[in-house]
This record gives sequence, C-alpha cells and structure tokens, in this order.
Amino acid sequence: MIRVITVSREFGSGGRSTAKLIADKLGWKFYNKELVEAAAVESGLSERFIEENGEYAGATTSLLFNLSLGASIGNGSVPMYDKIFIAQSNVIRKIAEEGNCVIVGRCADYILRERDDVLNIFIHSDIESRKKRILDRYPNEGGKKPIEKRLADKDKRRRVYYNNYTDQNWGDVANYHLALDSGKLGVERCAEIVVDVVKTYNG
Amino acid sequence: MIRVITVSREFGSGGRSTAKLIADKLGWKFYNKELVEAAAVESGLSERFIEENGEYAGATTSLLFNLSLGASIGNGSVPMYDKIFIAQSNVIRKIAEEGNCVIVGRCADYILRERDDVLNIFIHSDIESRKKRILDRYPNEGGKKPIEKRLADKDKRRRVYYNNYTDQNWGDVANYHLALDSGKLGVERCAEIVVDVVKTYNG
Repeated sequence: MIRVITVSREFGSGGRSTAKLIADKLGWKFYNKELVEAAAVESGLSERFIEENGEYAGATTSLLFNLSLGASIGNGSVPMYDKIFIAQSNVIRKIAEEGNCVIVGRCADYILRERDDVLNIFIHSDIESRKKRILDRYPNEGGKKPIEKRLADKDKRRRVYYNNYTDQNWGDVANYHLALDSGKLGVERCAEIVVDVVKTYNG
Repeated sequence: MIRVITVSREFGSGGRSTAKLIADKLGWKFYNKELVEAAAVESGLSERFIEENGEYAGATTSLLFNLSLGASIGNGSVPMYDKIFIAQSNVIRKIAEEGNCVIVGRCADYILRERDDVLNIFIHSDIESRKKRILDRYPNEGGKKPIEKRLADKDKRRRVYYNNYTDQNWGDVANYHLALDSGKLGVERCAEIVVDVVKTYNG
C-alpha cells in the first residue's frame, strides 16, 4: 500500500506543479510551504528563516559563512540549521503517519526511508525546458544573474543540503522508485503516470 | 512520436525481461543478443567475441590488460574493441531508422541521442531483490564468487564500458526519460508503465 509520495525535483523542472497535480488527482494533502508553518510551530523559529534555510544550503558565495553562523548561534548544543532539519523531520514523520499526502523536497525520501508505504519520485528535465519554465514564471527573480547560473546555483544548494543531511546523493537514480523527465513527457503526463502507479499498486 | 525504446539496466534488476515484455506488448522488435549477430556480420568479428566484449569492459581484474590488448591487436588504426563499438553503433542506427523496436543496453541511448523519437529507460532495483533474482535464475554462474561481488563486478563493467564510449555517466538520472525501480514496482508493472507512456505519447 502506498500512502505517502515524496517528490524531489530539479529547479525549473515543474516538480512542484507535478506534485500538486498528483495530490489533486488523488485527493491527498499537499505539503510544500505548508511544511514551513508546521516546522515554525514545532521549533519556535520564524517561518521566514525556515523557508530560506529549510531546504537550501546557504547561497554558494557564503556557504562557509552560513555554516559557521549555524554552528555559532546554536541554541544549547544544537546548531540553528540542525534545529530546522530536526523540526522539519518531526513534522514530516507526523504527516506520513497520517498518510495520503504528497511531500515536496526537504529530504523527505530519506527521512521516511524506514517506511514501506512511501513512493519516492524525482522530476528532472533538460536544461532548455527548465530555462523556459523559469523565465516564463519568474522573469524578474535573480536580478541580472544569467538563467543558467540561477539553475545551477539552486540545484547546487539543494544538493549540498540533501547530501549534508543524508548519506545519499541528491538525484542519484537509486534513491527514487520513479524518475521522470518532465521535458520529454510533460508535467501533466508525469502526474498521471504517478497516479496510475499508485492506483494500480494499491489495487 | 516514440518509435524506439532503449533499456539500460542494473545487473539482476530484470531490465532485460522488462524490455522483452515491453516489446511483446507493443508488438515491436526486441534486440538484445540479436544485436550481436548483426554486429558480427557488420564487422566480420566472431559472435562470441562481440558478446563477451560488446557491452562490458574487461573483467575488473584484467581491465588494463584488456585495454592494452585492444590497443595492440587493432586492425589498421582502429583497435578491436572500438571496431565492436562502431559495428554495434551502425547496427543500432539502422534498427532505429526502421523503428518500432526495443534495444537493450550497448549505449543505445547515447548512440541515438540526436533522434527525438527515442524513449530512454533505466531499470534498477534494491540489492536484495537483485540478489534473489540472480540466484533464482543463474545459481551456478560465477563459480564461488559471492553474489554481492557478482552484482558489483557486472555493473562496474557496464559502467566502465558506457562511460568510456560516451561523455555521460551510466545510471545518471539525466540520461533517462523514465527510471524505474523494479524491486518496488515489479517487472510486469514497469513494462506496463512504459507501454502506457508510449501509447499516450503517440496518441
């Protein structure tokens, strides 16, 4: 029985939209930014701080600075960034226990690795489709940074965050039960494939 | 329009069986060892020599030996191992041109990368499912080598071969439109997913 779906994704691949479509089609709960609010309650940290740091290593230009900051402003013996991870992990475990949910990013595949009712999805795409998607949707974000650099930076920050908190490599095919190219297949079709898999699996 | 499917696979993942099922369900031609015969005709090399070397780098214990052998017994300026690759590539391109076919391994995804009618699949699985599958099917192969070592060796030889002849990494999620965990989903279901994708894509 599959009761939980985790969706990891490359920036600009439409992974978040795919996850939302999957949740809508199955009538399941959808957790992306919703996790931030819950983790804020859990940890007492601000939503903004969690949103900025709960899935990304610090901007690549200041990674060492961010890490040293995390290590020095810790509350008691737990650095601030680890507090976010722990709060998010607790929230993700509670959500999974309730079941019938789709969780975007935040190492949920790894955090829930002991459960056998989880289906782990990875959404990726060719660089041209991703560029187009980001420029269509967020034309003004990123200042004057070239689009290729925006894509590479964001993926790198997700990768560093994931690899730091797991013993796995972000985007490694072995971590996912289904990895889908949304550029070739389309976001809508990717969602349909996952929904079909769940429905057939659950019988 | 998808007219060609390539299937890359981990050893013991049931990738070959999945590919055969896909071909049967679609009524398409299936090429695995059939490629060996065609490449033998194309190159004038023996089927046995191609079968042993047409998808695998030399056994890991003698890789350097094999590579040096390949470089020294070349016919004219083309080393023997490159002759196999070229012959197989030519056969794969001809087969793809005819269309409606499923091709197993042999860097077909890379060889056909300029075509837009190709769907690239990767089949992988957790180690326990792979061990069970190999021991069920080939209990006596591999002599006294432990099963974990047989799996690791075979994957390594496929990876070295692939990485040597392409500028990509074998098993990298970006190379495949669909990567499927046959341990979680089952071989039959993996085949059905791919067939559904092709039928829907082709309308």
